[in-house]
Amino acid sequence: MKVHYECFSCIASQCQKIVEMGTEDLGVRKRGILRAAKGIAEMKEDSIPAVIGSRVFLEVYDAIGNDDPFREYKELSNRLAEKVVSDLERENIDLKTALKLAIIGNVIDFAVGYSPERIEEDVRAMLGEELYIDNSDELFNRLSRAKILLYLTDNCGEIYFDRLFLRKIREEFPQLKIYIAGKEGPIINDATVEDLRRAGLEEIGEVISTGTRIVGVPFGLVSREFMEVFEKADVIIAKGQGNFETLSERKDGRIFYLLKAKCRPIARELNVPQGSLLCVRSPFGP
Amino acid sequence: MKVHYECFSCIASQCQKIVEMGTEDLGVRKRGILRAAKGIAEMKEDSIPAVIGSRVFLEVYDAIGNDDPFREYKELSNRLAEKVVSDLERENIDLKTALKLAIIGNVIDFAVGYSPERIEEDVRAMLGEELYIDNSDELFNRLSRAKILLYLTDNCGEIYFDRLFLRKIREEFPQLKIYIAGKEGPIINDATVEDLRRAGLEEIGEVISTGTRIVGVPFGLVSREFMEVFEKADVIIAKGQGNFETLSERKDGRIFYLLKAKCRPIARELNVPQGSLLCVRSPFGP
Repeated sequence: MKVHYECFSCIASQCQKIVEMGTEDLGVRKRGILRAAKGIAEMKEDSIPAVIGSRVFLEVYDAIGNDDPFREYKELSNRLAEKVVSDLERENIDLKTALKLAIIGNVIDFAVGYSPERIEEDVRAMLGEELYIDNSDELFNRLSRAKILLYLTDNCGEIYFDRLFLRKIREEFPQLKIYIAGKEGPIINDATVEDLRRAGLEEIGEVISTGTRIVGVPFGLVSREFMEVFEKADVIIAKGQGNFETLSERKDGRIFYLLKAKCRPIARELNVPQGSLLCVRSPFGP
Repeated sequence: MKVHYECFSCIASQCQKIVEMGTEDLGVRKRGILRAAKGIAEMKEDSIPAVIGSRVFLEVYDAIGNDDPFREYKELSNRLAEKVVSDLERENIDLKTALKLAIIGNVIDFAVGYSPERIEEDVRAMLGEELYIDNSDELFNRLSRAKILLYLTDNCGEIYFDRLFLRKIREEFPQLKIYIAGKEGPIINDATVEDLRRAGLEEIGEVISTGTRIVGVPFGLVSREFMEVFEKADVIIAKGQGNFETLSERKDGRIFYLLKAKCRPIARELNVPQGSLLCVRSPFGP
């Protein structure tokens, strides 16, 4: 997916959030923002939002001298999500519900001050929502015949919902070799391989790095090791917008996108109403 | 006033609004935004927000081929404001209330669909608010001794509130020669000299152009004719944030700023709570 006109101001707002989370010093915040204003000029007609965004964010990290401005936010997200998911795990959840929970985990903003009780209420309310596009039967069918699954994670917090879904997948499809990919290092609130290990995902599958801090699967920037797994996978589950943005033009029928179309560009690209919950198989073919 | 860290994302949001108002064509919107992303890279440590902002906006106007994206918005604002003000004019309003109305006129967003009745309610509610800094006695005192007043307008819609205030000024201080300045051409929702003429301001004073479309009083870009008036004025009333941004570093005691501190940077610069209504004399001296 290439940038839409809304991506510029969205990236700018995220840069503001980054400097606000990264430092209290107004002078340093301004230094970060001036670097962002330089970096955003690299945005081209065919830039991928997740890639140009990540590049600018990493410039800002460098300018403000903070390599992980979302650290506390991510820790809090993980703590809250773990609590909510541990409650849900006591119930007898089926595979389809677990898939929906994995999408819902992508939606929730585990913001500061948000209590586990409130999150749980929101989660249960969202479980009542229909998926706008639901290719989950096809996904499960393909998983039942597959040997290798590559699961591309997205955010902290959300990874605990992924864990719940992945446990169900392992139960239902015990033949699967599962790879679970995270980022090489911190970038906004994305889950790093470290976060995945701390969430205990190694018990379910092999935790691997994409080999880059750039959000999604930016071809040419991911590692050779990651590409080997990517190429041999029979099914790829890609969580969230960043993975969609970087993969959508591959027209790779192995990929199933699990996401909420949070922003207008993604909704426009997928031709769905903004806010839709989706389990959608990638279009494929030449 | 120099850019604060929040100015980047604010300018980016305004660019998005400009392309949305300026064209329905998504491809053209994107072309405008890519130009904005190039232009914003010119933002420096000591840029003035109103100046760098205006420069980027005019780049966007050029890229989307629309020289006045706010045309309809401004016409609607003028129509609504004129209606509201004509109701207020039937009442016996004193000079101080007229000054407050001129500040309030700067606050109201005469957005599409907003009815005159609702605006009038809001205006009356805001009249109950105290000015956070109120140097109006000093302003009136200086006006009583002055020969020449330069009145720097800000937005469309608001200019009808200015008209009401200026009529009171002319009544109370009949000795004054009044100059009323507008922009040379369209820039966001700022009032042009044409708008001022259409609002009938020529009946009250001499309508002049700053000589530029850049918001505020950008020294070096305003015309020689404007500078002559600026230099000979005994009192200068400067409406809104753009005039403040471009004038604040002059430390010119002739200037009285009438504005609401809408954004954090302006509030921070003036050391007042965000949202304050202000009639504040410029600090002065070497």
